[in-house]
Amino acid sequence: MPNLPPSVAVFGPGLMGGSLLMALRQRSPQTKLGVWARRCEAVEEARSRGLLDFGGTDAASVAADCDLAVLCLPVERLAELAGAIKDALPRHAVITDVGSVKKFVVEEMEGIFSRDGNFVGSHPMCGSEAAGLNAAQADLYQGALCAVTPTPRSRPEAVRSVAALWRSVGARILELEPAEHDRAAAVISHVPHLIAALLVELAARGKAEDRQLCAGGFRDTTRIASGSADLWTGILASNRAEVIAALRIFSDSVEEALEIMEKNDTASLQTLLVRAAANRAEMLSVP
Amino acid sequence: MPNLPPSVAVFGPGLMGGSLLMALRQRSPQTKLGVWARRCEAVEEARSRGLLDFGGTDAASVAADCDLAVLCLPVERLAELAGAIKDALPRHAVITDVGSVKKFVVEEMEGIFSRDGNFVGSHPMCGSEAAGLNAAQADLYQGALCAVTPTPRSRPEAVRSVAALWRSVGARILELEPAEHDRAAAVISHVPHLIAALLVELAARGKAEDRQLCAGGFRDTTRIASGSADLWTGILASNRAEVIAALRIFSDSVEEALEIMEKNDTASLQTLLVRAAANRAEMLSVP
Repeated sequence: MPNLPPSVAVFGPGLMGGSLLMALRQRSPQTKLGVWARRCEAVEEARSRGLLDFGGTDAASVAADCDLAVLCLPVERLAELAGAIKDALPRHAVITDVGSVKKFVVEEMEGIFSRDGNFVGSHPMCGSEAAGLNAAQADLYQGALCAVTPTPRSRPEAVRSVAALWRSVGARILELEPAEHDRAAAVISHVPHLIAALLVELAARGKAEDRQLCAGGFRDTTRIASGSADLWTGILASNRAEVIAALRIFSDSVEEALEIMEKNDTASLQTLLVRAAANRAEMLSVP
Repeated sequence: MPNLPPSVAVFGPGLMGGSLLMALRQRSPQTKLGVWARRCEAVEEARSRGLLDFGGTDAASVAADCDLAVLCLPVERLAELAGAIKDALPRHAVITDVGSVKKFVVEEMEGIFSRDGNFVGSHPMCGSEAAGLNAAQADLYQGALCAVTPTPRSRPEAVRSVAALWRSVGARILELEPAEHDRAAAVISHVPHLIAALLVELAARGKAEDRQLCAGGFRDTTRIASGSADLWTGILASNRAEVIAALRIFSDSVEEALEIMEKNDTASLQTLLVRAAANRAEMLSVP
């Protein structure tokens, strides 16, 4: 496994970026940490937590000092940042991101960082409905799966370097194509997010006193609906084709369930529930 | 608050019944505990855990010795049990259940226990996807909400006695009509359960390797889909009208979301997600 480069810069020290800084500080004390944030207060907060060796609000100057740049912004804000740092980055610097959508992001980033195949997309599967540096945790990536999505344009050393970064903070790596990632993410994450929001809206139609009945099941099923609306609007819009395809299949399945209920077909209902419980057990048992 | 009667019998020592026995043993050591189970092994298991002062597999003889009978069986199996114990119960005995559906159950039970309005339905909102005495916990009811659903036929002392039982194990009481309970439960619990199963099935269509991407969000959103298929088939079928009504509304909302995605209407998408996050926060903040 290659070592980390001397200097890693995090652009956007929120939940994901802040947790990465904390983990690197703990596990790779020799690594110099750079931080760029849009707001000066965020830079100072990172500094006061001891997570910053160099940094500031000028993206180009932070970029100039790093060997590995990790872009931790919402997907729709990556292009502007990438444009601001591309000429300042050292020629050898490797760039990755943490966005929940990969095809759109990778195409966009490969267009901007066109030279040498130094951009390789990442998606660590360990976000939560929390946000910001205050929610960051040094062990966020420990045991998590991180999707790494190279393309034929990616330089093999850049792919290894990005995988090494995530491994160094405890993540397992799954390499897959950007389009394949997005297809899987749509059914496993993006559509469930939208559906959780619709389940909240269904329950919110009821009387205020009925809401007292909300128990653990409701809390868990809808937890992700408390995620950042801005962040998730960007994610869903950036993976639109796959979300639409999955949502159509899901919509058909809701109609089928409705038909089962209308026919009072308890045998089919039971078959559906048995299969779902078995499939869930199998899906979550995959290491 | 009235005291517990001298003797409480639990019919069906599974997750709910077993937890009730454990909580009563800890908090009301003076109360005599009765246990009926269909299988002799389950009776012996309760006895070996010190949760049984009298009991066996003959429901009528357990019923004859109790002042308060708590029926902890799946809703579709309550009628058979009720028929078996109704003539054996002492005249003063109060009866309740823990079923997730109330209108169907209360009508059925009031028909069987016709005398004196001694049946009062309960629904403690603290089940989980786990099942059986091995999953039981002495603090399951601590801080949980318990719906109690009297009708005009219910004897006031019976209502007080049932509320006192749940309060004695730490639950808060919400009194509401059976039909109102079922309408709320459909949107807060029953439809989310069915939808969680459909989300598992959507994800299960993917390739085996994609499943590795399943993270905390998927785990939480679909947790309830691992509940007992038999139990939930009974619940959904017994609250059929309300589940169908809620599922129709939900189905329309899925169509609207699909339309928003197809139009690439990010403003409406963001509004939906903002509203859902706000509504969820409000719903779960109700004490």
